Amino acid sequence: MGKRGLLIVISGPSGAGKGTVCQEYLKNHPETLLSVSMTTRSPRRGEKDGVNYFFTDVPAFERLIKKGGFLEYAKVYDNYYGTPKSFVEENLMAGRDLILEIDIQGALKVKEQYAEGVFIFIMPPTMEELKRRIQGRGTETQEELLKRFESSFQEVNYISHYNYLVINDNVEETAKRIEAIVIAEKCRVERNKDFYNQVTGRYRK
Amino acid sequence: MGKRGLLIVISGPSGAGKGTVCQEYLKNHPETLLSVSMTTRSPRRGEKDGVNYFFTDVPAFERLIKKGGFLEYAKVYDNYYGTPKSFVEENLMAGRDLILEIDIQGALKVKEQYAEGVFIFIMPPTMEELKRRIQGRGTETQEELLKRFESSFQEVNYISHYNYLVINDNVEETAKRIEAIVIAEKCRVERNKDFYNQVTGRYRK
Repeated sequence: MGKRGLLIVISGPSGAGKGTVCQEYLKNHPETLLSVSMTTRSPRRGEKDGVNYFFTDVPAFERLIKKGGFLEYAKVYDNYYGTPKSFVEENLMAGRDLILEIDIQGALKVKEQYAEGVFIFIMPPTMEELKRRIQGRGTETQEELLKRFESSFQEVNYISHYNYLVINDNVEETAKRIEAIVIAEKCRVERNKDFYNQVTGRYRK
Repeated sequence: MGKRGLLIVISGPSGAGKGTVCQEYLKNHPETLLSVSMTTRSPRRGEKDGVNYFFTDVPAFERLIKKGGFLEYAKVYDNYYGTPKSFVEENLMAGRDLILEIDIQGALKVKEQYAEGVFIFIMPPTMEELKRRIQGRGTETQEELLKRFESSFQEVNYISHYNYLVINDNVEETAKRIEAIVIAEKCRVERNKDFYNQVTGRYRK
């Protein structure tokens, strides 16, 4: 083929079920890779370098920032987290599709640098459902919950920056819709310029 | 749902296999309608008004042209053929998807009036294959064949006006790709403004 892979950005408010949906998609598409982030935090027991994260130290991370080596990065408390450009670029070049599961702020930054990505916003069927799902975790106080819910609601306004909106009413169905989106995107005319230039060119010779 | 249906425009050079692909898609999607054209030519034996065509006379057709009642129309020898806007509009409003199988000139005219349509260019795997398929009909002289082939080649340059390019290497696969495109298009953010306005609006109340 020699065709570039697709960067499939799966994003949405926390509580929308992004992670479960990505796992379901990857189960059916073992040829697709999950993007590996780089971090300066220490590996936890069982975590492997290059699998769960690329582990590095702060000076190395900051050098990479200066070199423009991240599609996006953020500092959470004392630790950096970021998506290394080289990992993404090498896999796409090799024709592999890559899933990037990321929060909304991160997705918007990725879009600035890589607008050819496919930006999919995952949302629960209603905001009530989102509230219920966030509450379902049962690990937070009422105040924390309200804060998280308010922030989820604010984020919904970023939908217009995305290409697709998928309502996660059922994990299997949602994964199938993402599959359809990936097939369709590969047929988009702007992703097939090489093909039709080649076809018409071959005839001209 | 109350959602508008999709106008699925299936187009491409003659010899690409548009008709077979549409029939395959419709077989798997009985809820989707094939658009019915209007014509001034006489019905042939077995043809039914409102099924194969809407049959009408020249004055009535020309009145409809003046009223802007066609998405596109053309005069072939002494007969008019056109896609009546009202038929398309009524079905889309009722939430029904509609397939319009049409040549490239027609598709480009439809796009001017209804850019929200999904414009799919069907193409055989190579221009050699296109040549072979056109020759396969065996009903034309060498000169007619060359003329048809030349015109098919010219038309390929219009691909950039379309949203999708589907290579028809296998009818079942092509119909499945169209299915994926339809699912994906229904998830496009710009087609779901009502939904997310409603969701966020409901929360605001």
